Amino acid sequence: MRCKFCGRDADIYIPYPRMHLCKEHFIVYFERKIERTINRYKMFSKEDKILIAIGGGKDSAVASYILKRFGYTIEGLFLDLGIGGFSEKSRRYAEKQCKDVDIPIHRVEIRKLFNRGINEVKSSRPTCAICGATKRYIFNKFAYDNDFNVLVTGHNLDDESSFVLSNLINWNIEYLGRQGPILPGTGKFIRKVKPLYEVTEVEIKEYADVIGIEYISERCPLSKGEKIPRYKHVLNELEKMSSGVKINFIKGFLRNRHLFKFDLGKSSILKECKVCGMPSQGEVCVFCRIWGLDKPVELKVS
Amino acid sequence: MRCKFCGRDADIYIPYPRMHLCKEHFIVYFERKIERTINRYKMFSKEDKILIAIGGGKDSAVASYILKRFGYTIEGLFLDLGIGGFSEKSRRYAEKQCKDVDIPIHRVEIRKLFNRGINEVKSSRPTCAICGATKRYIFNKFAYDNDFNVLVTGHNLDDESSFVLSNLINWNIEYLGRQGPILPGTGKFIRKVKPLYEVTEVEIKEYADVIGIEYISERCPLSKGEKIPRYKHVLNELEKMSSGVKINFIKGFLRNRHLFKFDLGKSSILKECKVCGMPSQGEVCVFCRIWGLDKPVELKVS
Repeated sequence: MRCKFCGRDADIYIPYPRMHLCKEHFIVYFERKIERTINRYKMFSKEDKILIAIGGGKDSAVASYILKRFGYTIEGLFLDLGIGGFSEKSRRYAEKQCKDVDIPIHRVEIRKLFNRGINEVKSSRPTCAICGATKRYIFNKFAYDNDFNVLVTGHNLDDESSFVLSNLINWNIEYLGRQGPILPGTGKFIRKVKPLYEVTEVEIKEYADVIGIEYISERCPLSKGEKIPRYKHVLNELEKMSSGVKINFIKGFLRNRHLFKFDLGKSSILKECKVCGMPSQGEVCVFCRIWGLDKPVELKVS
Repeated sequence: MRCKFCGRDADIYIPYPRMHLCKEHFIVYFERKIERTINRYKMFSKEDKILIAIGGGKDSAVASYILKRFGYTIEGLFLDLGIGGFSEKSRRYAEKQCKDVDIPIHRVEIRKLFNRGINEVKSSRPTCAICGATKRYIFNKFAYDNDFNVLVTGHNLDDESSFVLSNLINWNIEYLGRQGPILPGTGKFIRKVKPLYEVTEVEIKEYADVIGIEYISERCPLSKGEKIPRYKHVLNELEKMSSGVKINFIKGFLRNRHLFKFDLGKSSILKECKVCGMPSQGEVCVFCRIWGLDKPVELKVS
């Protein structure tokens, strides 16, 4: 097959929209898609000071590579969750990825802060919930404490569509109302954006391969009970039967997201956590409760 | 394994809620479930005159068997769509099913009324859409013309959950707001109810087998392009991974259905069709347009 744009031998096939592309034009296609996502949702500009959550995987690696290439001001934060060899390997990849694109990398180590790894917390919550809450808190507070005004994560179309599907099938209405490519910043919440919102895992892998970006491909050893992979699986099945399902599903979701904002009333009234001063639903925020803190965690870089 | 209720050898396994049952207690379990559905949604009472849409398949056969057994006043309507051998075979099953439970059966034949089968209509609409609109119209008008006040269909949990999932993935909000186990009657719309709303296809097949109800199991030869089977497939996949997904999904939908009723405003204002006098969004209703009618179709039984 021939490249749709230049007629040379094609290297890559994109099932939706059905397109054969050579490597060069695949790069153009992919980067333009990211650029359009950034602009469509007004994610950030050249004036913003951007923090990206770097995990060592393909998504944040590709996002940081492209944002740097586009000329944005960006720094990485690697959160070491203290999951033995997996965390060490992730850190090595994250460091190499940041070095290769020449962006500063910051590190926060859970084990240094609290003397425990993420799987050593005594709690009735599942580990994945503890991990999620910890990540959200640390990334936000690090950005807040160090004057970043945008936090970028590598969530892609597969992540987002499966997350929305999961929340629909389980009718977690509250999560649906808050979901999207951009979460505006308010008060001590930093604006959160997902530039890979409209590209698939398959496209991201292709891009990483073409550019030569190396990344950790194992999944976290603690994520075995997680249910998101099953929703990814069924969306992949639907996509096979009719390509474009994921992107059309997520775009339809964004058009109709207002339907889920009616029940948000109560939960959106936030106080300040008595321990750390960050936004909280209760007297003490989830993070300070999980880790049993009596003073705020210090994340300011000198 | 032993029957959960009597301890005898079990014949049947119900994955959700995990239960082994002997045939006798499966019948009790299944019928009680239907009875509870009828009562929970206040579908009908012994005073109602009930019409059931009989198609020759397992669902309407099981529904008519059970409603008759429960002592309701019920008659069947078989709509012959004129799809050659398939329609003939369906009719023979429908007639036998009604005879076996001793309920009257009425027949409406599309080919006799319009000199055409359902697949010979010239239209830009897909055949399944024409068929759906025709069925909805004929069943409702037949019930209205002949003083029935409830219309029963055999839709089951698999039908309903896949329909809701399909409308969510494609964001057909309007359909979602109108979906449910009971559609109240208003004006010339007869109340529509689905007593099998909470039982699965597998359970219905088991029940038909245990009772000895015979039914047509082929699918309509015109339904090949239909997309509902793929949503049934993915729900079956999810159900395999975690049993109870379908019933919890549909119950969650019913709890949250109000979210989808906001955009219904305009479309719910109906006029009377100039040709037949039945409710219509336009000057002439979809049915009269599809079949090119200039006078109402006569369905009153003398």
